[in-house]
Order: sequence, then structure tokens, then C-alpha cells
Amino acid sequence: MRPELLTEFAPLFFPRSLAIIGASSDLRKYGGRFLKALLAFGYQGQIFPVNLQEREIFGLKVYPSVRDIPQEVDLASVNVPAAAVPGTVAECLAKGVKGVEIFTAGFAEAGPEGQRLEADLQKFTGQGMRLIGPNCFGIYCPAGGLTILPGADFPRESGHVAFISQSGGLAARIGHLALGLNLRFSKLISYGNACDVNEADLLEYLALDPETHLIAAYVEGVRAGPRFFNLLKQVALRKPVLLWKGGLTKTGGRAVASHTASLAGEESTWAAVFRQAKVIKVNSLEEIVEVALAFTHLPENLGLRLGVVGGGGAISVAAGDACERAGLQVPALSPDIQEKLKKGLPPAGASFRNPVDLGSPFPSAALLRSALETVAASPQVDVVVIDQIILSGRRFYPFGGEGDSEVVGIPIKIKERFGKPMVVIFPEIPTKVEHIDLEIEQRQARDLYLAAGIPVYYTLDQGVRAIAAVARYYQARQAEIVG
Amino acid sequence: MRPELLTEFAPLFFPRSLAIIGASSDLRKYGGRFLKALLAFGYQGQIFPVNLQEREIFGLKVYPSVRDIPQEVDLASVNVPAAAVPGTVAECLAKGVKGVEIFTAGFAEAGPEGQRLEADLQKFTGQGMRLIGPNCFGIYCPAGGLTILPGADFPRESGHVAFISQSGGLAARIGHLALGLNLRFSKLISYGNACDVNEADLLEYLALDPETHLIAAYVEGVRAGPRFFNLLKQVALRKPVLLWKGGLTKTGGRAVASHTASLAGEESTWAAVFRQAKVIKVNSLEEIVEVALAFTHLPENLGLRLGVVGGGGAISVAAGDACERAGLQVPALSPDIQEKLKKGLPPAGASFRNPVDLGSPFPSAALLRSALETVAASPQVDVVVIDQIILSGRRFYPFGGEGDSEVVGIPIKIKERFGKPMVVIFPEIPTKVEHIDLEIEQRQARDLYLAAGIPVYYTLDQGVRAIAAVARYYQARQAEIVG
Repeated sequence: MRPELLTEFAPLFFPRSLAIIGASSDLRKYGGRFLKALLAFGYQGQIFPVNLQEREIFGLKVYPSVRDIPQEVDLASVNVPAAAVPGTVAECLAKGVKGVEIFTAGFAEAGPEGQRLEADLQKFTGQGMRLIGPNCFGIYCPAGGLTILPGADFPRESGHVAFISQSGGLAARIGHLALGLNLRFSKLISYGNACDVNEADLLEYLALDPETHLIAAYVEGVRAGPRFFNLLKQVALRKPVLLWKGGLTKTGGRAVASHTASLAGEESTWAAVFRQAKVIKVNSLEEIVEVALAFTHLPENLGLRLGVVGGGGAISVAAGDACERAGLQVPALSPDIQEKLKKGLPPAGASFRNPVDLGSPFPSAALLRSALETVAASPQVDVVVIDQIILSGRRFYPFGGEGDSEVVGIPIKIKERFGKPMVVIFPEIPTKVEHIDLEIEQRQARDLYLAAGIPVYYTLDQGVRAIAAVARYYQARQAEIVG
Repeated sequence: MRPELLTEFAPLFFPRSLAIIGASSDLRKYGGRFLKALLAFGYQGQIFPVNLQEREIFGLKVYPSVRDIPQEVDLASVNVPAAAVPGTVAECLAKGVKGVEIFTAGFAEAGPEGQRLEADLQKFTGQGMRLIGPNCFGIYCPAGGLTILPGADFPRESGHVAFISQSGGLAARIGHLALGLNLRFSKLISYGNACDVNEADLLEYLALDPETHLIAAYVEGVRAGPRFFNLLKQVALRKPVLLWKGGLTKTGGRAVASHTASLAGEESTWAAVFRQAKVIKVNSLEEIVEVALAFTHLPENLGLRLGVVGGGGAISVAAGDACERAGLQVPALSPDIQEKLKKGLPPAGASFRNPVDLGSPFPSAALLRSALETVAASPQVDVVVIDQIILSGRRFYPFGGEGDSEVVGIPIKIKERFGKPMVVIFPEIPTKVEHIDLEIEQRQARDLYLAAGIPVYYTLDQGVRAIAAVARYYQARQAEIVG
């Protein structure tokens, strides 16, 4: 680990000034949209648009070249045609720019001419100026006021999740996926063809970065294989690392070449990496978000024993199956706790052993409170999972006679009182537009739970997979450190 | 197969008159809610509420006993306490009622006393009157005007999907899950403890039922094992059968006993069933809905070769991986078709081989049309999958300069013109309530696609799994019939 990386990469993440080369007042152009996005996001440093034709863009003075900028430039973003990129980067080097993000595509991923252009870029590396890209979306770093193009609406608040992505589109998608789930990032980095800064550099930087507590990565092929694999082992002992390796199949591997000009590599090599390192293997962006949400809200000493409370719909059977498949336990509650539950629960249609089935997905506040209290107090339970409690009886009983608005707040109160980790499963119900009010109700409740540190999932399978990932990671790390 | 089952079960599904024993004007009571739900649903036959205390409920004349009803009663629904059920069923038999659905719980699933009560019920079987339940939600059959309790808002239109469920809650949930996806049912049957009509009877009936084209089942334990397994083999050659076996794990199996008083059975026995029969194994309600949606919209001769068109976000790599894992093919398009695509697509950031990456998730209508035309016309492609085309650029570019409302309609026009099966992947983006307008936009588009016979999925994994289930089922059936 090289602590000096923190200083070396600072201009990329926390630039005091920023040149946008290829800026435009035309919002159909990438350079125009990027400048607009940065202004909307509220970047606080100095912005210098660079463009040969225009004099002023969105109220900012325009410079014909980066060399004409009278002040120091920490970071330059490059949005000019591929053929003009090497010349532009040469000017940046001459100007003393410290970091460059090259958004332009059409390099090694695009055939022989692009390969020649990318080889040209290599000439500018190793001289102190660090390059991100080409063929990327660059960097989102809220603490530095920096965002990527499709991220004008990304949150200004920082979080502790970092995402390294060889794909720019995925960096954009994860930001939007995470928005409504209140998942916050320290850094999102789309690094594309990695002509200079590569996946290993970024992994090392994020391992050192105090703002980052969890590192997720989407990797198609690695530039610095042995170093990357070796780093993975070390870093995974410090911070959870979620790795999505794209192109592990033949079909996917074939696509890797034309996407980021990488070699997808052997499935067996990667299988060994996942076996040897404490790296958590994921297979989609949704899974990254699900698992990151669990790491964000659940504690380090998480146990494997679940207490599941739900209502009807075979939840006891389905939850039992799902938990065991994920490697979690659903221990039978002790006889005295079952007796306690029996007192509060309706005699028929309910189940007390664990999973606890309240007999109906619309329990009264009193019934839900009493069942959750009993389960949360049980010493056999490490995590409480609430499954399929439907907030609005209106969905099922549209003629009225139903509804206990107090129900929504119960899980939060129980979590506060007993201090036990809790997870809520809210099934996604694809209502038509005329019933969007039910959806709104559910999203408002989700916001409340997330704010109270309770991760929320659409399906039980997603929820238990995420819980299992957290519990198993900390157990394995503990075993490694102790052993 | 016994064609006489169609006549024998007719009173259960198409009753001309219906007694609701335990009806009430009190909407806190189950019998009150059920009557209200039937009225809201619009049952067209005669309804006779039965209750000792009341004289009139919701404008209907009330009878003190089923024997006091002056007309014939096809079906009786029983909502009285467990101890009173055997006496009530005896009265039904004496009255000549043809079918009885017993909603009351507290039988074999609830201990020794309940077991005795259930043994009492057995005495009334085999005398011409058929019993559904106890411990169930009964029957939803839109053609018969019948619904289950949490199904007052279920559609009045019929469809071709039938669902048999040992769990009432799951029958309710699937109806609501399917509502917004325009999935329509012939019958939903919650059969609970199966004291008379069991899973094998229902499977046989649905195999014969001309309205039913696909049968899905949630089964915890079987009453008539050898007959059921033998039927599965036969029926799966006639109609697709999706089977979710609850309680295959130890934990889930333990829960089965207290849920429906069944024996979950050996995992190895079930593994053999899935191997020998052409039955499609599913593991959740969501999966049933996903696969049923694909069977509803995709043709019988479906091929395994996908043409995937999407925009950015590593879709070419991720789609290649997901398709190969699901056993589908993504053949490289022929050189002339790739050339054609190249003409329409931006030079950089795009990929033409298949999956086809348009370079951006917000293509113009012209770009999307041209790419889809080329892929749909390709003889190497059996199914066109549209992945991650985001309808609203507003989500990513909130400052404007984006948007081509024509895009939404393009897939429908291409499907009509080329007649090729098509599937759309719409990622679920958990927006906050203040951006619910984006969600509304997406749901409106989903309605349009579903109406045009294009199934819509949240994730690529779900979509390709559903396509693979359809293609593989018809291939295996063809092989069996031919072989």
C-alpha cells in the first residue's frame, strides 16, 4: 500500500479548478451537457470552459486553449473528438494540469486506428499527470463537488460506498438505483480503457481512502493482473470488496473486447480469486446495491440466526427455504417464547415456532408490536426480518373496514428499543397507474425505514442473500485474522 | 383422465347460487368481508347469507340455516368457528348442496383437537358433495363470478393461467402481483388442508379445463403422492406446469407441518419428479408470474437465439453473460447485418456484433428504429430483447435538452411489422416520491407493451430465465412426443 496515492490522486477527486475542454453552449453536445451538469450539481471550484469558437458559455468566460487559462488547473475533462485527444492531452501536460479525465470514446475498443491513438496517449503517462479513461464517464465525488455527466441529480451528500466501474453506463445506473434507497457514495469512478490509472490503482487508493468503507467493482478485464489479485487479498481483509466480473461466459467474454478492449480472462483464474480472497462475488448491479445496503446498515458482529415475522402467504415455509438456501439459520424459538407469542396471536392460521406467521398480512399495530417485541427479545435471534407485512389493507380490501396507520412505525420503535438489527421485505407490487397512491404510501414507508437504519428489499431472496453476505464476510475475516 | 370431473367440479367454479354461512354485516368479521367482496366483485347468481342473529345483510334476506333456504344451493362457503364446521357441513349435505368451500382454520394444522375435527369432516366426503379446504381462501373464477376474500379488486376478465395453491395467502398475493402486469387467470384455487379435493384432483381438472392453458402450483405436501406424480408426467405433455414445492429444505419442511399439516417429503423424491416430468421448477411467486407472463405472450415454436439491443451500461457484456447462464444463445450477427447497423449507429461507444449496444440508454427514435429493424429482420434471431432503454432522459438529464417521446412506440411497431417475439427489460428504479412522475411514465409504457403482447421484466436475469423456460419446455415436449 502506498499512502502517497492519497495525495497523488487528490486533484482527480478534489480539484480546486477544472478545465472543460470541448465545452459548448449547445446542449446536444456532450461538452455542453457536462458543463451544465456540473453547474447544476454545484461544483464550488473555478470552471474554465475551453472552446475555439465561443466566448462565453452559461455566463462563464471561455478560453481558446487550456494553455490560455491564466490560473492553475487541477483537473481537465476532455470532450473533443478522438483524433484531437492526444494533442489536447499534450497541452494539458505543458500547462501543468495535474489530472485529466478523457470522456471521448473511439480508442482501443474501436479498432486499429483507435489502438494507435491510445498508444499515443501512453506517451503522456508517468510524468506526474494522472489520466482517467479514455472511453469513460469520469468521476463522481460529492465531497469534491464533482459529478459524472448523467449525474446532475446525484446527491451532494457523501456516503461510504465506493464503486469502480470499467463501464460508464453502470456508474450512471448505480447512482440512480441508489438514489431512492438513500445509499450514498464516497466516489464513483468510471475508468474505461485505463490507459493510465487502472483498476489496481483505484483499488489501492480506495483501500487507503478514509471516506470509503466498502468497495464495489465492475471489472471486464484487468490491466495489472497479478498486482490486482494480490491487492484484492489484502484489501478484502480491511474493507468489504464486492466484485462483479463481467464476461465470465464465452458470450459475455466476446462482448468485453468491443466494449473496453480488455481480455475477459479465464473463468478458472477468477474462480480461484473468489476462493482465495474474502472478495464477495456479485453478478449484477442490483445485487451490488442490495449487498451494499446491508453493509451500510447492519453491524460487523452480525450473527447468522434470523427471527422472521410475517403474515400469511406461506411465509413460514418460503422464508425457511430461502434462509436455509442462503446459509442462514431460523432457529426454533424456545418453548417459553412460543407460549408468549401464542397469547398475543390468533389461535388459528398463525405459527409461533419461527418463522412466526401472524396469520394475516395486515396485523393490527398491537399484534405486530407484541410479536416483534417477543422475537426481538429472544436471545436466539441475531437479526429480525419482517416479511410481507402489507401496509395498506386498501390494496386487498378496497371496500374499507381495514387499516391501522400505526403499523408503519412499529418496526422502527422495536429496533430502537431492542437495538437488534432489522430488515424489512416490501414486495414490489406492479400496480397500474390509477393505484399509484399505494405505491407512494409504500415508498414513504421505505424512506422512514431507511432513515432508521433498516434496509428494505423487494423479495425475501434478495434480503437473505444480502444478510448472508454481511454475516459471512465478517466471520471469514475474523477467522483469517485470528487464524 | 376423467372428463366427468368437469361436470363434477362445475358447482365449485360456476355456482348458480351461493350460501354464505357465517355471513355478517360486521366488516371486522371474515364472513362479512367475504360477502362484501363478492358483491363488489359482482357475482351474478343468487346469494343466500346464513346467520342466526341477523335478518338482513347489505340488503339481502338472511336465513337462520342453510336448510331454511327455499331454493337449490350449488355452493356453500363456510365461515363459522372450527368446532361448528362439521355440523354445518352435515346440514349442507342434508340440503343437497353440491360444493362447499371451508375457509375456517384450526383443523389438522392446529393440533390434536383440530385433527379430530378434520377426521369428522372426512365422513362427509364420497357422497357426491365436494369439499374445498378447510384452512383455505377458496376459489377465484372470474367466468363464474367467484372471488376469494382478498380479491374484491381482482379482474372480472378471464385469462388462461390457473394457479393451485396450498396457501391462501399466496393465492391472494399472486392475484395482486398479476394485476398490474395484465396477467389474467382462469382459476385461482386455495385448497388448504385438502380434506376432500386435493392437488391431484385439481391438476386433473385443470388439465381437462379448456379455459386453462398453463397450470402453476404451490404445493407443500401431497395427499395422493403416486397419483399426483403420475398425473404431473401426463399433464406436462399437454400444458406447461410450473411447480413451486415449498419446504424442500429442513427449515422450510419443519414449517410445512404447522402451516397445512402436510409432510414436506424428501428432497430426492422431488428432484426425481422434476427430472422425469417436463414440469418447470420455480422457487417463488415472483418467478411464477415472470414465467407465466412469458408463456402468455411468447409462441410455442420459440427458438433459443436472442438478438439483444440496449444502450450503454455494459449491456453487451452483462447480457451475454446472463443469456449464456440461462442456456440461451446470442449469435454474432452476420457481417452484412453488422455493416448495416454500423451505418445507423454512432461510430464510438456502440457495438454491432450482438448484443447490440446503441452507446446510450436514450437513443433517438430514428436510431432505435433502425437498429431494431435490422436485428428483427436477421434470420439468426428468434427473439428480440430490448434492454435498458430508458424512456425518460429527464431522469438522467434533469436540465433538459433530452427526450424523444416517439421512442416508446417503436418496439410495438417493429413487433407488428416483423412478427418476431419481443421482450422488454425495464429496470426498477426506486425513485423517491417526489419523482413518482418518472415511475408513472414507465408504468404507462409497460401497459402499452403488455397490451401489444410484449412481456416486460425488471431485470435481464428475470427476462432471460423466463424466455429460456418457454423455449426449453416446448423443445423438451416436442422431443418427448416425437421420440
